[in-house]
Amino acid sequence: MLLGPGDDAAVVSTPDGRVVVSTDLLLEGRHFRRDWSSGYDVGRKAAAQNLADVAAMGARPTSLVVGLGMPADLPVAWLDALTDGLRDECAVVGASVAGGDVTRGELVVLGVTVLGDLEGRSPVRRSGARPGQVVAVCGRLGFAAAGWALLEKFGPGARGEVVTAHRRPAPPYAAGPQAAELGATAMLDVSDGLVQDLGHVAEASGVGVELDPAALPVAEPVAAAAAELGADPLDWVLTGGEDHALAAVFPEEVRLPPEWTVVGRVVAGQGVQVRGRAIASGGWDHFRDSLS
Amino acid sequence: MLLGPGDDAAVVSTPDGRVVVSTDLLLEGRHFRRDWSSGYDVGRKAAAQNLADVAAMGARPTSLVVGLGMPADLPVAWLDALTDGLRDECAVVGASVAGGDVTRGELVVLGVTVLGDLEGRSPVRRSGARPGQVVAVCGRLGFAAAGWALLEKFGPGARGEVVTAHRRPAPPYAAGPQAAELGATAMLDVSDGLVQDLGHVAEASGVGVELDPAALPVAEPVAAAAAELGADPLDWVLTGGEDHALAAVFPEEVRLPPEWTVVGRVVAGQGVQVRGRAIASGGWDHFRDSLS
Repeated sequence: MLLGPGDDAAVVSTPDGRVVVSTDLLLEGRHFRRDWSSGYDVGRKAAAQNLADVAAMGARPTSLVVGLGMPADLPVAWLDALTDGLRDECAVVGASVAGGDVTRGELVVLGVTVLGDLEGRSPVRRSGARPGQVVAVCGRLGFAAAGWALLEKFGPGARGEVVTAHRRPAPPYAAGPQAAELGATAMLDVSDGLVQDLGHVAEASGVGVELDPAALPVAEPVAAAAAELGADPLDWVLTGGEDHALAAVFPEEVRLPPEWTVVGRVVAGQGVQVRGRAIASGGWDHFRDSLS
Repeated sequence: MLLGPGDDAAVVSTPDGRVVVSTDLLLEGRHFRRDWSSGYDVGRKAAAQNLADVAAMGARPTSLVVGLGMPADLPVAWLDALTDGLRDECAVVGASVAGGDVTRGELVVLGVTVLGDLEGRSPVRRSGARPGQVVAVCGRLGFAAAGWALLEKFGPGARGEVVTAHRRPAPPYAAGPQAAELGATAMLDVSDGLVQDLGHVAEASGVGVELDPAALPVAEPVAAAAAELGADPLDWVLTGGEDHALAAVFPEEVRLPPEWTVVGRVVAGQGVQVRGRAIASGGWDHFRDSLS
């Protein structure tokens, strides 16, 4: 094992070479609702969140294996749609579904594991951020959270780009290997919220992160949903997860391509600060810690 | 992908080489009960059943990743014991836990994925059995089923080797690579029952399998449990899963080491017959099929 717990994915050495592997569980009721998302959407999302973990290491996802728990009365059409969703999201990055395991259960449970190829690059971990370096993001922030808020308020009939984004994240997969090539010193995908996830980078690197709220991208569909619900869109951008944007740290001299937006800076110290804002962060990592 | 759905594990090609990967879900209430098994036992068993899948390909397990769903009130001691169990079972084969993911849920759910190294060998699939070849098993048969029957009758206080075997399978990991070296033409681990699992070999290979009931090993602890409960021990040996014995097919001329027991023969035809016995077999593979 070249790289163990504490990063988005593990790198496993074999006599043949290296493989990146990451796993996630999705539970009905917690990660998706069958009245809010179709089987196809759940498949897309389940694949996307894992593929993004591999991209966040600077690797190219190659294959997925899936464990599925399902109630006896789950319609076969739902299952077929799930399979199609998994397959189609894999196809976005040229990966494929390599295997599956099915078991009966009370609720739908998905255990998804993805493997990826570093193509000769070094994996980008969480621990390489140094004071003076810049923090940049690529991909959507706050979309899924805004969509969730609309679904909660208006039910399955809620419409719009952020609702679709909640059902089907669109992680910027290619930006992962790109960031690695550009010399990113730390990277992860934003699955639990920008502040919380950058907190992992800060902790692993022994640094602080200062975000500039004026630099954070508030996309129009997020702003519109916030206006509709009387919410602060920056809350969703800072704390909303499940869009699986990539957040990376680069040396100051790196010229970033336009798909990356600089949103802050690494500083001496600890934790994540948003200039002019008090923020609360959570997270519970006992299991991850106990495996390290 | 060199080898996809339909075998115990998938083989994934990367530019660097090959890796064997397999995944399983374990659900509380279905695969284990917290009043029957300790956290440590569940960890051992969860690891064992996946490590056995890799061994059944003729590979050496190298690492495990685990997704864990758990209720908020799960005692930390249970979680620590689970982690110890995963780690200790991996240590039996020189593998290690490479990563984890944790999420809240109503019940304990484990998604376990294992990677393995073929060390230059060809993977042993299910489809290579040919008429005239011999069927052999290595490892325990009927132990876990007997233990389950005792636990069901006497509750958590049930004692004995088969009860321990139900809680902690002891798959013959080394026999997997050994069988591959000996030229096994098909192999799998017995997770759902000997008859049902050999049915997968028969189907994939386009052959029939004839088992000799007199050759099937009925171990003393299994016979004792059967006597205690008035059961037929051969039922457990033929249909009991979860011991994760290995079942393999070899060319007739192969000289098998003593840890392998010849229990039958591959014949022209289809399905699994046990001489002199009517057997019922089940199984539901829609998801696996739909992924293939």
